Amino acid sequence: MAPPTRRSRQLKLGAVLMGVGGPGQHDTWRHPEIPGDASIDIRWYAARAQQAEAALFDLVFIVDSQFITPHSPPHYLNRLEPLTLLSALAVQTTHIGLVGTLTASYNSPFNLARRLASLDLISGGRAGWNVVATGDGGTAGNYGLDEHYDYATRYGRALEHVRVAQGLWDSYEDDAFPRDRGTGVFLDPAKQHRLDHRGEHFSVVGPLNISRSAQGQPVIFQAGDSEEGRDLGAAVGEGIFTHAATVEQGVAFARDVKARAAAKGRDPDHVLIFPGVSPVIADTDEEARDREEAARLGKDFAKTLAQFGRPFGWHDFSRYDLDAPFPELGDLGATSFRTRAEQIKALARENGYTLRQTVEHVTREQRSPFVGSPRTVADEIQRWFQAGALDGLNITVTVPSEFARFTDEVLPILRERGVVRSAYESTTLRGNLGLPVPRNRHTAARDAELVAR
Amino acid sequence: MAPPTRRSRQLKLGAVLMGVGGPGQHDTWRHPEIPGDASIDIRWYAARAQQAEAALFDLVFIVDSQFITPHSPPHYLNRLEPLTLLSALAVQTTHIGLVGTLTASYNSPFNLARRLASLDLISGGRAGWNVVATGDGGTAGNYGLDEHYDYATRYGRALEHVRVAQGLWDSYEDDAFPRDRGTGVFLDPAKQHRLDHRGEHFSVVGPLNISRSAQGQPVIFQAGDSEEGRDLGAAVGEGIFTHAATVEQGVAFARDVKARAAAKGRDPDHVLIFPGVSPVIADTDEEARDREEAARLGKDFAKTLAQFGRPFGWHDFSRYDLDAPFPELGDLGATSFRTRAEQIKALARENGYTLRQTVEHVTREQRSPFVGSPRTVADEIQRWFQAGALDGLNITVTVPSEFARFTDEVLPILRERGVVRSAYESTTLRGNLGLPVPRNRHTAARDAELVAR
Repeated sequence: MAPPTRRSRQLKLGAVLMGVGGPGQHDTWRHPEIPGDASIDIRWYAARAQQAEAALFDLVFIVDSQFITPHSPPHYLNRLEPLTLLSALAVQTTHIGLVGTLTASYNSPFNLARRLASLDLISGGRAGWNVVATGDGGTAGNYGLDEHYDYATRYGRALEHVRVAQGLWDSYEDDAFPRDRGTGVFLDPAKQHRLDHRGEHFSVVGPLNISRSAQGQPVIFQAGDSEEGRDLGAAVGEGIFTHAATVEQGVAFARDVKARAAAKGRDPDHVLIFPGVSPVIADTDEEARDREEAARLGKDFAKTLAQFGRPFGWHDFSRYDLDAPFPELGDLGATSFRTRAEQIKALARENGYTLRQTVEHVTREQRSPFVGSPRTVADEIQRWFQAGALDGLNITVTVPSEFARFTDEVLPILRERGVVRSAYESTTLRGNLGLPVPRNRHTAARDAELVAR
Repeated sequence: MAPPTRRSRQLKLGAVLMGVGGPGQHDTWRHPEIPGDASIDIRWYAARAQQAEAALFDLVFIVDSQFITPHSPPHYLNRLEPLTLLSALAVQTTHIGLVGTLTASYNSPFNLARRLASLDLISGGRAGWNVVATGDGGTAGNYGLDEHYDYATRYGRALEHVRVAQGLWDSYEDDAFPRDRGTGVFLDPAKQHRLDHRGEHFSVVGPLNISRSAQGQPVIFQAGDSEEGRDLGAAVGEGIFTHAATVEQGVAFARDVKARAAAKGRDPDHVLIFPGVSPVIADTDEEARDREEAARLGKDFAKTLAQFGRPFGWHDFSRYDLDAPFPELGDLGATSFRTRAEQIKALARENGYTLRQTVEHVTREQRSPFVGSPRTVADEIQRWFQAGALDGLNITVTVPSEFARFTDEVLPILRERGVVRSAYESTTLRGNLGLPVPRNRHTAARDAELVAR
């Protein structure tokens, strides 16, 4: 297979479709442009996906969670299951990739591989899987466990889960089905393969009862910033969702993950870094900064405090004095979002912060680094991209007219400069991301054997 | 709540969408009207669903299986996962119900309930779940088990699974979300409910993170003819998929299941019997009979023999002498499709059949009882319907032009007689089937408490 022609590197674009809220934005459902039931309204998602596709985005991205209480923020409370949602979007779009978050902690690999392969065929090769290890410990109770898996088990399961799914996706070689009407031969039985996997966490015989799509296999995305998360991303991630507050942080993260991937024998160019961002765009830089500030200060502190508890297992911080020193939490968070919880504890300790100061610091960190006029935002994105802090952006989509400012005012500038595409290169997600189609392992093994003879 | 106005009983219609083959029809993929990859082609399914919707069918129905070998019949080998498929159809149709087969043996109730609830919202209240206990024992190996669950466990799991799903579907009362933009109240926390289920097979805390649809809950279908299967259908089935060779058999089955349902305190009118049928329609009765005969005799006996092995765990019958007495099989099939396997053994024993005679008898039994001119077929369907042998038909859809003979030539006769509808009554599956919307259990409990005071 000839290597693809090298084209100049272009910025990739993801759209995180949030119905009623987003990270640090719990009240977007009150916005006049957003229906209150957007998170369960397929028309809302289809319109946003089509808006992103018209702007030549690479992918839409659906986040997920499965544990709620009456106090959960709006976008956790009532949401469509990601793959069910994406399958409906598949037939309402033609080019954009469809990436769903599915936990490796509480899914069976056979069922998950099958559903993703189905989405991949239905969409003509546009499926992606954002592999996560469940952080919300309460999810365990919805799946028959009294206690959530510990951290090592979660990441062990995640890696093995991906390997099993990839094995199942190769159950059929690409020429397995002659479907010869004359002779009546539907399948070439030598080209169907069992997996016979027996591992630490899963045993799966196979074969999977579905063939490969135009992109070979769904694209693997990964999100998770711990040591274990970075290693998982380096091992199997083709796209990495992350967060970066500064260009230096972004460069350091990208270098680290790509170096880990190279150490595992992978091509670092096939590991694409996508920080999540919420640009704030206005006619002038000053107006944009004012809007960002007003939105931040206008937030309900009680809601911010509730969300602040998530890494600690949705711990209720309203029980503490806001202006006393940050509370002693022991190992709280160890079985939830451990890395994040430890980062926050260290931040409070090192700075001698009160609870209020800690929350304010964390909120400031989450401020968008892309705030300004369309030209300022375009310049800044280009700077990050050229510095190697990112390969793509994962833009949070809430208010349609604000997203339109990005697609209609920022992107044309970047397009003119050749930073983003002017037309889709492909109808598959791999094709648009510049990722290779993985060869079927059984075909490759047979070819290698032929050469050896 | 006032009872719905009683309308005269009408025949309900289901379309079983088979891409490349169907029961006893392994070679339909060779038909010029059927693309060889129809079973993985979403456009094929969408076109058939739209054909059924144009004919005012109540529902499309997707069968399933998850265990294959290189010798499995074509329609087992390569197929889309049912819910992923139905979600794509949901946005390409407007009125027709979407019923998917999902096993209660190898799914987690939380995940399954969530996916079905998502489909129900995406489709505006048109989802249905055909609850099955997996019969193909080999499926166990794809889900980490060395041995398949025994019969009692499978049916115990199925009943508990449905109850858990129904409990999760009531997690939110219908007025749980005030979404008051002025006050900022998104959820009324008193109207979100945990399940806290701890049962023999499943433990699920809840609540489910998705609200109810326009039809309240997905419709429960059930297929399975054993004692355990009939009891499950009587306990929870609102539609029963079955097989009937004669009107007498159909009446006996319908009476039995409805009596069991009544004994459990249910309204037997809310248990609808849907035999699966493949009508053969031609200009004259004679021509239709000739076509049916030719199709039956033209079948590849080896393929018929392979399919014959399914109830026995895909046992390979080609190893036996066809003309020797039916082989001694011990309890083969006990952990697969036990009831069917035992029926076949008894049939051979009681008639002193050879293997060939047994296969021929079984094949004859599977002959369609609806063969003839459009008027003959319409008359016969009406006779069965009026005798109480069925409430609906589940028509196998393979060749589009043959399905069109049913929709365009048989249905108009039945429509003129008032046996089938002239327009959809509703946009929900429950509405069209005449099934009540189940009240949310928590709302009902609160109302009962208020009355008691």
